[in-house]
Amino acid sequence: MKKIGVLTSGGDAPGMNAAIRAVVRKCIYHNVEVYGIKNGYQGLIEGNIEKMEIGSVGDIIQRGGTKLYSARCEEFKTDAGQNKGIEQLNKFGIEGLVVIGGDGSFRGAQKLTAKGYPCIGVPGTIDNDIPGTDFTIGFDTALNTIIEAIDKIRDTATSHERTYVIEVMGRNAGDLALWAGLADGAESILIPEQPDDFQDVIERLKRGHERGKKHSIIILAEGVGSGIDYGKKIQEATDLETRVTVLGHIQRGGSPTANDRVLASRLGAKAVDLLLAGKAGRMVGIENNKLVDHDIDTILTVEHTIDEEMYQLSKELSI
Amino acid sequence: MKKIGVLTSGGDAPGMNAAIRAVVRKCIYHNVEVYGIKNGYQGLIEGNIEKMEIGSVGDIIQRGGTKLYSARCEEFKTDAGQNKGIEQLNKFGIEGLVVIGGDGSFRGAQKLTAKGYPCIGVPGTIDNDIPGTDFTIGFDTALNTIIEAIDKIRDTATSHERTYVIEVMGRNAGDLALWAGLADGAESILIPEQPDDFQDVIERLKRGHERGKKHSIIILAEGVGSGIDYGKKIQEATDLETRVTVLGHIQRGGSPTANDRVLASRLGAKAVDLLLAGKAGRMVGIENNKLVDHDIDTILTVEHTIDEEMYQLSKELSI
Amino acid sequence: MKKIGVLTSGGDAPGMNAAIRAVVRKCIYHNVEVYGIKNGYQGLIEGNIEKMEIGSVGDIIQRGGTKLYSARCEEFKTDAGQNKGIEQLNKFGIEGLVVIGGDGSFRGAQKLTAKGYPCIGVPGTIDNDIPGTDFTIGFDTALNTIIEAIDKIRDTATSHERTYVIEVMGRNAGDLALWAGLADGAESILIPEQPDDFQDVIERLKRGHERGKKHSIIILAEGVGSGIDYGKKIQEATDLETRVTVLGHIQRGGSPTANDRVLASRLGAKAVDLLLAGKAGRMVGIENNKLVDHDIDTILTVEHTIDEEMYQLSKELSI
Amino acid sequence: MKKIGVLTSGGDAPGMNAAIRAVVRKCIYHNVEVYGIKNGYQGLIEGNIEKMEIGSVGDIIQRGGTKLYSARCEEFKTDAGQNKGIEQLNKFGIEGLVVIGGDGSFRGAQKLTAKGYPCIGVPGTIDNDIPGTDFTIGFDTALNTIIEAIDKIRDTATSHERTYVIEVMGRNAGDLALWAGLADGAESILIPEQPDDFQDVIERLKRGHERGKKHSIIILAEGVGSGIDYGKKIQEATDLETRVTVLGHIQRGGSPTANDRVLASRLGAKAVDLLLAGKAGRMVGIENNKLVDHDIDTILTVEHTIDEEMYQLSKELSI
Repeated sequence: MKKIGVLTSGGDAPGMNAAIRAVVRKCIYHNVEVYGIKNGYQGLIEGNIEKMEIGSVGDIIQRGGTKLYSARCEEFKTDAGQNKGIEQLNKFGIEGLVVIGGDGSFRGAQKLTAKGYPCIGVPGTIDNDIPGTDFTIGFDTALNTIIEAIDKIRDTATSHERTYVIEVMGRNAGDLALWAGLADGAESILIPEQPDDFQDVIERLKRGHERGKKHSIIILAEGVGSGIDYGKKIQEATDLETRVTVLGHIQRGGSPTANDRVLASRLGAKAVDLLLAGKAGRMVGIENNKLVDHDIDTILTVEHTIDEEMYQLSKELSI
Repeated sequence: MKKIGVLTSGGDAPGMNAAIRAVVRKCIYHNVEVYGIKNGYQGLIEGNIEKMEIGSVGDIIQRGGTKLYSARCEEFKTDAGQNKGIEQLNKFGIEGLVVIGGDGSFRGAQKLTAKGYPCIGVPGTIDNDIPGTDFTIGFDTALNTIIEAIDKIRDTATSHERTYVIEVMGRNAGDLALWAGLADGAESILIPEQPDDFQDVIERLKRGHERGKKHSIIILAEGVGSGIDYGKKIQEATDLETRVTVLGHIQRGGSPTANDRVLASRLGAKAVDLLLAGKAGRMVGIENNKLVDHDIDTILTVEHTIDEEMYQLSKELSI
Repeated sequence: MKKIGVLTSGGDAPGMNAAIRAVVRKCIYHNVEVYGIKNGYQGLIEGNIEKMEIGSVGDIIQRGGTKLYSARCEEFKTDAGQNKGIEQLNKFGIEGLVVIGGDGSFRGAQKLTAKGYPCIGVPGTIDNDIPGTDFTIGFDTALNTIIEAIDKIRDTATSHERTYVIEVMGRNAGDLALWAGLADGAESILIPEQPDDFQDVIERLKRGHERGKKHSIIILAEGVGSGIDYGKKIQEATDLETRVTVLGHIQRGGSPTANDRVLASRLGAKAVDLLLAGKAGRMVGIENNKLVDHDIDTILTVEHTIDEEMYQLSKELSI
Repeated sequence: MKKIGVLTSGGDAPGMNAAIRAVVRKCIYHNVEVYGIKNGYQGLIEGNIEKMEIGSVGDIIQRGGTKLYSARCEEFKTDAGQNKGIEQLNKFGIEGLVVIGGDGSFRGAQKLTAKGYPCIGVPGTIDNDIPGTDFTIGFDTALNTIIEAIDKIRDTATSHERTYVIEVMGRNAGDLALWAGLADGAESILIPEQPDDFQDVIERLKRGHERGKKHSIIILAEGVGSGIDYGKKIQEATDLETRVTVLGHIQRGGSPTANDRVLASRLGAKAVDLLLAGKAGRMVGIENNKLVDHDIDTILTVEHTIDEEMYQLSKELSI
C-alpha cells in the first residue's frame, strides 16, 4: 500500500487532531503517502482531498476540533454516493482509508469495505458509546470539561443551598453522566441504562437537606430526557430551590487531555499498521490497556453497556 | 471602633472570599476584633455570628463562592427586620459592618446606616452593574469563564460550519457580553444598552458565510432576552444551522482570577480603613486604578452605562 | 470490624482526598465507624486521630493535596515506633487501617500487618511506579498538569525557534515523561528505563531544524538526571538556542482529574471492602480496568516497568 | 495611507495575536492594505513580508505566542540595518508600521521614525515594565498562569508543612511578583523596587510557623536574584524545610485572558487610528481605563515604578 487517506466524520471530538497527526506521521515513517480528506464523506464525494506532510500536522496535537473538518452526509448513505467516493479515491491512487468517528461513520467504512475498498475505523466520539473499546477518543476530555463545570457550579451551590440539575451529553449512553457523577460526588445520577427511581432521588435530596447539606447535585444524561423538565419535577416534589444547567456544546471542545492525546496517537498509528498489514473492515480499540481490533460488522451489532459496579458504587458513596 | 462585622449578600461572586480574608486580616492588623455573619442579612437577624481569626480565612483566597454563605432575605427589607439585625450587632458589641454584595445588598447597608449603624459596601457581583466602580469583584472571573467556554464551542463550531448563539449572564447589564464578545471575536454582540438591529446581525452572518467563514458566534446578554428564542429567529432568517448554549451557573463559580483576588483584597481592606476613619454609608470602588469611595445613596440612583467606544470597536473588528 | 482508620503518607498526590472520602463514606454506608489519622505515621504514633463523619469529607473530592496531611516519619521504621502506632490504634478501638501512599508507606502497612494488625494499601503517588496497578492515584492529574505546562511553553517555543528541555517528576520511573512526551509530540523522551542515546537525540534535533521546524521539545524524567545539565549538553552539541524548565512542585498539586477522582473513589471503597472481608496486607489496584488486590509483600519486590510499545511509538511519531 | 505593516518583536507575550488581528481587521475596515512582517526586525531586513487578509487572522485571538513569530536582531540596531528595513518597506509600498513588543522593540520604531518612517508602538510584554501604560499586553495572562501554578504548589505545601520560594519573571520589574503575591496571599514578596529586608522575611516565617501555619510562600521576582540561592538562605536561617520552584517559560505562553485579548484589540486598533491620523513615533497605552498615546522618546526615558500602596497592603495582609 503506497497511499493512505484519512478523514473525520460525525460529531467532532477532542483528540481527533492527535489521531490525524498519528496517521500522517505513521504513514510517513513507513514511507507511505498520506492524504487528508476534508469535511468527511461529503469531501470524499467532492474530491476535497490534499496530500499531507509532516508540517501539515504541526502544532495540532493539543487542539480541539478537527483540522480536517467534519460534516454529516446523506448522499454517502446511498450506493451512488459511495461509488463516487471510491472513484475519487481511485483518482488520487489512495488504496486504503482511515475513518475517525462514531458508529454512523463506521457504517460508511463498512460499505466501502464491502465494495472491496479497505477501511479501518478509529473510534472518536465523546459519548463512549462504541463497543469493542473501553474508551473512545474525546471521552476523557469531555468528562473533565463536565467536572470542571460542575466544580464551578458547586461553588455557587454551596453559597446558596440549592439543588442543581445538570444535563450532560452522551446520546443514548450514560457513561459521561456516570463518570462525572462519581467524580463530582453527585447525589443522584440518571442514565438511560438504569431505571429512574424518582422516589429514591427525592428521598436522597430530602435526607441530605435534613442532614444540613448545603447543596445537592443531580447529573442527568441527555438520553434520559430534558434537564429543564426534570428540574421542574424536582422542585415540585421537594420544594427546594432547584436550578438547571444544560452544559451543551462546551462538552465537545477544548484542548484534549493527556489521555485522549495518547489514546488517539496509539489508535491512529495502529490503524495505519492494520492497513499496511492488509486488514480491512476493522475498528481499532483499546481494551484492558491493550490495542485491539474488531470487525466493524460485529461492533455495529453489539449493544453498549455501562459498568454496573461503578453505578452501584455511586449509590453507596452518595448516601 | 473595636469590633467589626462582615457579611456577604445576594448572588455570590468569585473573589468574595478574598474580600472576606482582607477584611479579617486588615482588622487583625489594626487590633480590631472581627466577626463573620453567615447567610447574609438572614444570618444577621438570626444572630448566626462568629468571631473570626487569621486561621478562619486560611486557604480561601483562591476559592470561589463565599465562606460566609449568602442568602436573600425578605424580612430585612422591613423596618422590624433591620431593627432585629441592629439588636444582634449590639448584642455582640459589633460597631461597624462591611457588606459585600450588589445593589440589593447595599440597600440594606443604606437602611442600617440611616438608623445610625455605620456600614460600608464592597461591590461583589459578576454583573459589573454597580456605578461608582470600574469593576466589581467577580466580573473578571466570570468573563474568563465565559471566554473559556466560547473557546471550546469555537472548536466544534469550526469543525462543523455552524452559527452559535451564546447567552451569558449580566442581569440588566451588557458588560459581560460586550467584553466576552470583544475577547472572542464574536460576529455580533447583543446587549440591553444598545438597540438590537436584527437585520444587521443577519447581514453580518450572511456576509461571513459567503466569505467562507467556518463559524459565527453571537453573544447575547440575558438582559436582552432568551438565547433559545433568538437562535430560532436566526435559523429561520438565515437558514444556517444554529445552535444555542445558555452558559448558566458555571459563570458564578470558579477560582477567582488574579485581578479579582487583588481587587477584592484592596476593596476589603479599604472598607475597614473607612470604618476605622469614622465613615459610614459609603461604597468602596476602583476608578482609574485608584481606590475611591462614594455615598451609597448616590450609587443607588446613578444608572449603569457601558463603554461606547468598546461597543463601536466590536462592530469595526467583526467586519 | 466496627472501626476503621485511614491515613495518607509519603508524597501527596491529587486524588488522595477523593480516596479518603470514599473510605469514610463506604464505612458509614456499612455502619462502620471511621477515624482519620493526621500527618501519616507520625500522627499515628502521636495519637493525632479523629472520628470522621459524612460532613468531614464534604467538598473535598475536587481538592488537591490531602485533608489528613502527610509527613515522612523515621520513627515508624523502627519496631518501637510501630508498636506505639498499634497502641494508639488499640486505644481508639480501631481494628483495621487503610494506608494511602506509595511504596514507602506500604512498608509501614506491611510491618503492621506482620504484627497482626490488618492493613490495606491504596496506591497514591503521581509517579505511577507501583507494580500491581496500571495506574496510581495522582498520575493522571500530574500528567495533565505537565502537558498544560508544555502547551504553554510550546507557544513561546514556536514564536522563537528554540529547543526546550523540560524536566518532569517521576522519581525512578519514566511514566510521566513517556506519557507527557507522547501527549505533547516531544522530539525526544529520556527515561530511566531506556538507554539514553545522546547522538540520536542530537540528530533528531538537527533533522527537525533543517526541515524548518520552529521548535523542539525534549522531555527528561528526573530519574535520568538534571535537566539543567542536559540542556547545556544539548546547546553545546547543536548550537541551537536551548532553554530548560524544571517543572517542580506544580506537578504534585491541582484539582484531580475525573480519572483520578473515579480511580481514587473505587480504590478507597475497595480497600474498605477488603478489610470488612477479613483481608490484610493487600494492596488494591486497577488492572485492565478491573479492581484487583495483591499481596503487599509481592508488590514490594516486583520491579516497575514501562510500556515498551508506547516507547517505540513515541520514536516512530517523532520522526 | 494605503498600506500598513505590522510586526512583533522581542519576547513574545500572550495577546500579541489578538493585537495583530485587531491591526489587520481595523486596516481592512478602513480599506487599507495590511502586511505582516515575520520574525520581527530580522524579517523586515530580509523582506519576509506577506499581505494579510481577514482569513489570515482567523482563529488566532485565543492563541498564545505570535503568529508573526519574533526574533531578536542585532543588525537592526545599526544604521545600515535600519536602512535595509526601510528599503523593504518602500519596495512593498508600506507607508506606516505597527510595532508590537517591549522597550527594545520601541527603540527600533524610534529609529525608523527618526529617519522619517512613521511607526507606532504597541506595548506587548508580560513584564508590565513599560511606562505610559498601566498594563502591557500579556501581563494579565502571565499573572494568572503564575497564580494557578502557586495554587497547585499550595496544595502540596499544605499537605507537608513546608516553605516554598517561587521565582517569577519580570526582568527588572516587580509587578508580576507583587500582584501574584497579593493574589495568592504570599508571606513575603521580594521585588527589585523595594529593599529586601531579609530579617523581616525570616521573622514572618517563624511567626507563621509558631502560629501553626501549614505552609508559607515567598514570591521572588527574577530581578532580585536567584530563587535557588534564596531558598538556601531561607532554609539555613529558619531550619524549616524549604523548596524552590523557578516557574520559567510557562509564564510566557498560554491562551490570553479576556483582559489581555480586549486590551490587545483596543491597542492594536488605536495604533492603526494613529497612523491614519498622520501620527508617528507614538506608543499607545491604557491609562485609567482610557486609551492614550505618548511619545516613544519620552517613554524610553521614564523609569518604571510599582504601586506603593499595593506593596504596603501586601505587608499588612500577610501578618
